[in-house]
Amino acid sequence: MKIGFLHPGSMGVSIAASAISSGQAALWASDGRGPATRQRAEEHGLQDVGNVTELCNQSDVICSICPPAAAEDVARAVAETGYSGIYVDGNAVSPERMNAVAGIVAKNGASVVDGAIIGHPAWKAGTTFLHLSGPARAEVAVCFSGSVLTAKIMSDKIGEASALKMCYAALTKGTAALLCGILGTAEELGVRDALNEQWEIDGANRSRDREATVCGVPAKAWRWIDEMEEIAHTFAGAGQPDGFHLASAEIFKRLSDLKDGPHPSEIKTVLGKLRGID
Amino acid sequence: MKIGFLHPGSMGVSIAASAISSGQAALWASDGRGPATRQRAEEHGLQDVGNVTELCNQSDVICSICPPAAAEDVARAVAETGYSGIYVDGNAVSPERMNAVAGIVAKNGASVVDGAIIGHPAWKAGTTFLHLSGPARAEVAVCFSGSVLTAKIMSDKIGEASALKMCYAALTKGTAALLCGILGTAEELGVRDALNEQWEIDGANRSRDREATVCGVPAKAWRWIDEMEEIAHTFAGAGQPDGFHLASAEIFKRLSDLKDGPHPSEIKTVLGKLRGID
Repeated sequence: MKIGFLHPGSMGVSIAASAISSGQAALWASDGRGPATRQRAEEHGLQDVGNVTELCNQSDVICSICPPAAAEDVARAVAETGYSGIYVDGNAVSPERMNAVAGIVAKNGASVVDGAIIGHPAWKAGTTFLHLSGPARAEVAVCFSGSVLTAKIMSDKIGEASALKMCYAALTKGTAALLCGILGTAEELGVRDALNEQWEIDGANRSRDREATVCGVPAKAWRWIDEMEEIAHTFAGAGQPDGFHLASAEIFKRLSDLKDGPHPSEIKTVLGKLRGID
Repeated sequence: MKIGFLHPGSMGVSIAASAISSGQAALWASDGRGPATRQRAEEHGLQDVGNVTELCNQSDVICSICPPAAAEDVARAVAETGYSGIYVDGNAVSPERMNAVAGIVAKNGASVVDGAIIGHPAWKAGTTFLHLSGPARAEVAVCFSGSVLTAKIMSDKIGEASALKMCYAALTKGTAALLCGILGTAEELGVRDALNEQWEIDGANRSRDREATVCGVPAKAWRWIDEMEEIAHTFAGAGQPDGFHLASAEIFKRLSDLKDGPHPSEIKTVLGKLRGID
């Protein structure tokens, strides 16, 4: 199978490498992409076919792996080429947005698969899971058989894999945001040391681990903002309060311009940004 | 020292028992209290002095341990007796409300201590901490020396112990509420089994432990609503987003009328309440 990847970031390129190791060809389109993406794609054996139209012409399967807010635009760009193969949306979007993506791509007869990637970039077996729902889920799963990426088949319902992704990320990223808010508050009120001491009593290294979580946030905060809004939307759609993840989005917004600083960041730097006193 | 307890619930009576084991006398006022409170107080050796006025007349130290929303009313009732001893507010209130309490009680010359109780009722050494801030903190700490309750002395600043309590509970109870929202969303969207399966891959028993946390919430949800509002207020006062804990308050509100059901509750019952389909 020829699988086209739109747009191979650090996660996308690892998924492409899994497809290659499973015996498929991985294609990409360099048109309009930066030198870092080109280097990453070449390093891992992706074949450059030039532009999105060519990618859609040559691919049996197209994988969209992009920031959640871009998912519909990417789908539209693919639909405009008249693509009618299998289209996998592997993005962290709400079930509602996933269904909107499906509506866009299915116009020309493409078969849409809802994909949810859970875990780190797929370089080690058992660490990365691609959950798949929708009628063509099995055809996509076989593209990765024998690779380090674990494909998990769900039902034929578009939106199911996305719902799982939203619920899963709601805890990991929501907890990271909550810890930021807590340590920001503790610092502002002069009780951070006392809080850390109490956390250490609760369990060895808890304080260290929690501050390390907070220090790791700025490297990713900029691309988690949209995802938090997708989760908030998912909660609201399911009748649950959306406040956890709207607050998380606000936390990540405050930390987003530490993107280009050293990572992990210093705790004082992160808390200063959260408190608006950088 | 004679220490008066207003109003000894399951936590309060354990603190009183610690004071007794440290050689102090523990007093309480049965006026207007129910038979369960009376039985608990008698069982643990608290002396009944009748009413609040008498309690204030006879006590060197008064401890207020009550729901956060009642903290100011309790302080007012004590102030009205002309009490001028040491007044410990051990409630889960924001630093701002703690300062309001201090303002009320200090009118007659009482010395106010900000107390924060962290942990379970104090029946076992090393499990319960009473953090104390304010000028008279050391006088209060000695009332518990040698007991299973660990008194921790902070600064002389009223509001500091409360700030610590708010930050600490922000994580424990905020995470419990977040888990409720996540499992409520997952159930509504039909992905609870898939989510639990993914959680189990992340670590053995995570799914079981997280559902157990959710099942344990209804027993306490009714008395955590106010506390979440205090935490939200504390976050806002410290310049951090208050949405996590306003959402937590909403979650606990939905579960509050499961108070009288069996505990721990069944997961289906809890999720049904959260989804409004009980």
